Amino acid sequence: MNNTKIKVGIIGANGYAGAELMRLIAAHPFAELRAVSSRAHIGKKVSDVFPALAIDADFTDMDSDEFYKCDIVFTALPQTAGAAKVGALTDKGVRVVDLSADYRFDDVSIYEKTYGVTHPRPDLNKIAVYGLCEINRKKIASAALVANPGCYVTSVLLSMLPLCKARLASDIIADSKSGVSGAGRKSDEAYSFCALDENFKAYGLFTHRHAPEMSEKLGQNVLFTPHLLPIKRGILSTVYFDTADEHAVKETLQTAYANEPFVTYTDTLPEIGFVAHTNRCMFSVRVCNGKGIAISVIDNLLKGAAGQAVQNMNIMFGLDETAGLPVDSPI
Amino acid sequence: MNNTKIKVGIIGANGYAGAELMRLIAAHPFAELRAVSSRAHIGKKVSDVFPALAIDADFTDMDSDEFYKCDIVFTALPQTAGAAKVGALTDKGVRVVDLSADYRFDDVSIYEKTYGVTHPRPDLNKIAVYGLCEINRKKIASAALVANPGCYVTSVLLSMLPLCKARLASDIIADSKSGVSGAGRKSDEAYSFCALDENFKAYGLFTHRHAPEMSEKLGQNVLFTPHLLPIKRGILSTVYFDTADEHAVKETLQTAYANEPFVTYTDTLPEIGFVAHTNRCMFSVRVCNGKGIAISVIDNLLKGAAGQAVQNMNIMFGLDETAGLPVDSPI
Amino acid sequence: MNNTKIKVGIIGANGYAGAELMRLIAAHPFAELRAVSSRAHIGKKVSDVFPALAIDADFTDMDSDEFYKCDIVFTALPQTAGAAKVGALTDKGVRVVDLSADYRFDDVSIYEKTYGVTHPRPDLNKIAVYGLCEINRKKIASAALVANPGCYVTSVLLSMLPLCKARLASDIIADSKSGVSGAGRKSDEAYSFCALDENFKAYGLFTHRHAPEMSEKLGQNVLFTPHLLPIKRGILSTVYFDTADEHAVKETLQTAYANEPFVTYTDTLPEIGFVAHTNRCMFSVRVCNGKGIAISVIDNLLKGAAGQAVQNMNIMFGLDETAGLPVDSPI
Amino acid sequence: MNNTKIKVGIIGANGYAGAELMRLIAAHPFAELRAVSSRAHIGKKVSDVFPALAIDADFTDMDSDEFYKCDIVFTALPQTAGAAKVGALTDKGVRVVDLSADYRFDDVSIYEKTYGVTHPRPDLNKIAVYGLCEINRKKIASAALVANPGCYVTSVLLSMLPLCKARLASDIIADSKSGVSGAGRKSDEAYSFCALDENFKAYGLFTHRHAPEMSEKLGQNVLFTPHLLPIKRGILSTVYFDTADEHAVKETLQTAYANEPFVTYTDTLPEIGFVAHTNRCMFSVRVCNGKGIAISVIDNLLKGAAGQAVQNMNIMFGLDETAGLPVDSPI
Repeated sequence: MNNTKIKVGIIGANGYAGAELMRLIAAHPFAELRAVSSRAHIGKKVSDVFPALAIDADFTDMDSDEFYKCDIVFTALPQTAGAAKVGALTDKGVRVVDLSADYRFDDVSIYEKTYGVTHPRPDLNKIAVYGLCEINRKKIASAALVANPGCYVTSVLLSMLPLCKARLASDIIADSKSGVSGAGRKSDEAYSFCALDENFKAYGLFTHRHAPEMSEKLGQNVLFTPHLLPIKRGILSTVYFDTADEHAVKETLQTAYANEPFVTYTDTLPEIGFVAHTNRCMFSVRVCNGKGIAISVIDNLLKGAAGQAVQNMNIMFGLDETAGLPVDSPI
Repeated sequence: MNNTKIKVGIIGANGYAGAELMRLIAAHPFAELRAVSSRAHIGKKVSDVFPALAIDADFTDMDSDEFYKCDIVFTALPQTAGAAKVGALTDKGVRVVDLSADYRFDDVSIYEKTYGVTHPRPDLNKIAVYGLCEINRKKIASAALVANPGCYVTSVLLSMLPLCKARLASDIIADSKSGVSGAGRKSDEAYSFCALDENFKAYGLFTHRHAPEMSEKLGQNVLFTPHLLPIKRGILSTVYFDTADEHAVKETLQTAYANEPFVTYTDTLPEIGFVAHTNRCMFSVRVCNGKGIAISVIDNLLKGAAGQAVQNMNIMFGLDETAGLPVDSPI
Repeated sequence: MNNTKIKVGIIGANGYAGAELMRLIAAHPFAELRAVSSRAHIGKKVSDVFPALAIDADFTDMDSDEFYKCDIVFTALPQTAGAAKVGALTDKGVRVVDLSADYRFDDVSIYEKTYGVTHPRPDLNKIAVYGLCEINRKKIASAALVANPGCYVTSVLLSMLPLCKARLASDIIADSKSGVSGAGRKSDEAYSFCALDENFKAYGLFTHRHAPEMSEKLGQNVLFTPHLLPIKRGILSTVYFDTADEHAVKETLQTAYANEPFVTYTDTLPEIGFVAHTNRCMFSVRVCNGKGIAISVIDNLLKGAAGQAVQNMNIMFGLDETAGLPVDSPI
Repeated sequence: MNNTKIKVGIIGANGYAGAELMRLIAAHPFAELRAVSSRAHIGKKVSDVFPALAIDADFTDMDSDEFYKCDIVFTALPQTAGAAKVGALTDKGVRVVDLSADYRFDDVSIYEKTYGVTHPRPDLNKIAVYGLCEINRKKIASAALVANPGCYVTSVLLSMLPLCKARLASDIIADSKSGVSGAGRKSDEAYSFCALDENFKAYGLFTHRHAPEMSEKLGQNVLFTPHLLPIKRGILSTVYFDTADEHAVKETLQTAYANEPFVTYTDTLPEIGFVAHTNRCMFSVRVCNGKGIAISVIDNLLKGAAGQAVQNMNIMFGLDETAGLPVDSPI
């Protein structure tokens, strides 16, 4: 690594994932922030909009030339809103990690049905690599475009993908619980403090958009129910599945994650508080009478979004995969 | 008390204070809900808009005739928005408890300066009684119009008013902390869960509208600083004052509240959790080297709003003052 | 109802359920508190131990004669600790609602295996009535001893029992999430604010004591996983089941709860905030491709403990079943 | 900076400040963890005791030789418990940052009166440097022993010390509000989730131990009232003072903190959420009619404890003062 830092741009830096990306890149030892865009805040200083960030930069427009001078651009825009921009950047050789769902699906028709849209650049879908780092590390290293996985999806795939590949799990039900930041920045009474504090609810029964993403990646249909926790950050997924071979389940998972810095398969039942503010996934599996239960936790904004995006960048540029990413959780 | 229940109307029932009023009246042994209005929800069932309320009633328009058939109407509208309506009701002999600031001030010019408006019915201000129950009980009993005090103001006056009347306190600084419901129902990112959870802030330094109300009632200028607590309900006010006579302070307060069901002067330092979900005010006073500190707690939506409004109604109609009002706080 | 109020005793009034019972009985229109016991606080005033309660009573010993003069005694002691006391009271004709698990099981051997104890009074088990009010109302009315159901169990049975009786549900998985008060009053770092705030975890996988209780009452094995929410009160249970007949499911539930004041079967997905601080259970059921999901909410300390206990008392003494029990939830 | 990292020991690593120190040092670019002690956990792996920390180290006894091989040792023990150990280390040339109050006072008699103890090493008090980094930077650089300031004290001194030195503030009242972690790790019902969630209280009126520390450093008596916020981390202090010259106040503060990386004097009213999880202090001052109000926020475990301790280490070893210390706050 010479002294030249990787030049980074962030498009859609106003959202929670975008703000976390700014924070991570600002503190990254081998990368530097060169351009950040937010339609709502063009021309304003980042630290004026977000007093919590001491970052010395101004918000620009997403069409600024600066993004084309970057080595990598993170795009964190709503579904389809950034798809064309992603294409424009990759067409000019700028590598992209896209945090939307636009390029996550192998089967474009499932994407189009799930999101109710026509995909603007189905050609790019073919070159996009699904950015679940521990699974696709090799392809990510050389990818022009990485589709960063959904937060709920990451919390389910890391434990279940090795089991499904080994045909050790069927009839999967994922009962997931997420902190409120997963819904994004909101000016909506339904997300007001008084509506959510001391409250808890399920939503999106049978209809949440992350179910088709999980199902495609696992190669089998998943019954997925998300819930909203009165906390800011974190996801815990309780995954039920049928399995015939407890020993094979445990061996498969031990092998899969023996040397991973960010994924810990453990006997200790994990809690959201063990991974909040880190890029880590911890999970545990118990099996009894043919029924398995996986308990898996991540920070939805880090391993579930901005952290995994930076981990993808680290892989793409041959850096230490852990650079700039926290692994120890504060109290 | 014969079997005829008091007929109650609530105008502006959509806000937090209004919803609490519906809940209190629905469970009140001697009152019944006859009409509720909300501009946003005309024609809808209360239980459809608020699934937390099992109340069988429909929202109507505030101009409905039903309100004129009530024995008492609670008006819970924003400042000045309801002032004319209050006049129309009292003109026709319907007694009113108004939860806005419109009729709280003796001096209309202070009201107009504080709220930046012209008072629509200054004539009514003269007949309005300031509804701090424990202080103005006699006047309230026969009042045509009661101005329900501000939440912060109630938390400060109950401890300080007897001391100020006895000239036992000067140089008053009120440092108050309120739960989020004090700000009302909001669709605003600044009041979103993610903006307020695990957070705490001061606001309105030297400029909050409750300072002139406190100052007028105490007969001296109060330096008042409000803060926003990450809880739904409750106010704790820490009031600093200069005093020369600790013994007189304690005797004055013991005498003032010896037999009050809802005000408890105690040696135990009170916590918000001791009074949340009740109509009670608890406070304690410590004096050392000429400096006094009063710690006072209320539930901002009950003793600070809807509860005190019902207490006023109980007084106005000769009922047991505690009817329908909780005094024991749940864990 | 003449003017004589029902004389009530509470043994084990120091715990959260016991304290809620004191609060409910103190405000009950047709009952009065005659004796309360707590080993830790004998001789102390209730309001000194719990400043949140303005109740004028002293804690006594559980062996006090006063309990034998009561019409009904609520026993809220740890498993087996109160079993003999319950016997002593019922032997002398005092009716009892027991909040422990001691008398909940039809099959004493399941109880003994689940709790790892020998049942001290298996004879009484035969006369004990399982106090799920909406299901066992008739038997409760004349019962000498009512076993109040477990909190998690109540949240699952109310939706699932009618379906299981009609053979409309199989392969049941109950994924439940409870507020912290469900664990009882604790001096334990694991239940400290810093350990639980902004946190969430599963516990008791395959081993929680409420699973055998659910399974016995439903007549089939239930896979039950409890979780700990960072809120004080409330349970939400997400119950997955296989079902072949969506229409029959909905009709069965509509019929079962058409006229219940405290159980609401609704299309609206219920939230804990809709029922907190009330005795209500709200639930909704969705069916898709042979899979059913029931979302059910209760307040664990009310419908899940003290509230249902008072509802049982109301039934036992021929009172209005809703007397003294809140149904509308505050914001 | 050559490749040799600073060798760090932590004594009393079990507490919240100690655990934060482990986390900061584990991620520090120029320091490495060589020894950690905790009486309660001798011989256990750090990651077994704290699953949230992926740190590969074992807890040892505080008397281990390893501490004498360190370049610097952080001592985070209760008052007086570590005073002799600090002496043993400094006697052998190991530099120490002590997080207790033992060496904070210039006047040992005030310390002894405040803490009700006899100081075990009053001689060391003379060489100890008070570790408020921005004020004592030069002395800290060469100190053998640094006394890390109290959390509340730091939140008040950073704004008020420049004003007091310039004789611009008198009659100071500090009304401070702290997150629960400030009380340390507790197995005590008073610090249980159910006791503190949705609650708020004042404590220690006229008697808190941080008042004499503030008063000594400011050179005048401070009336200090702490309160307990239902959040994990952070302090907000509202400081009232008399002042005659608004212009001088603002100029003094601008000059004092013009180039500080961790102290921001700003017009924006700061919130705890702006600095949580960072080593930053933000404060704002408003003056009106001779009364000043400073609003100041820090993270009590970072700038108020472990973060400032690492900042002191950075100064003592000639490192970039910001190394390993976060300045941007996550959402």
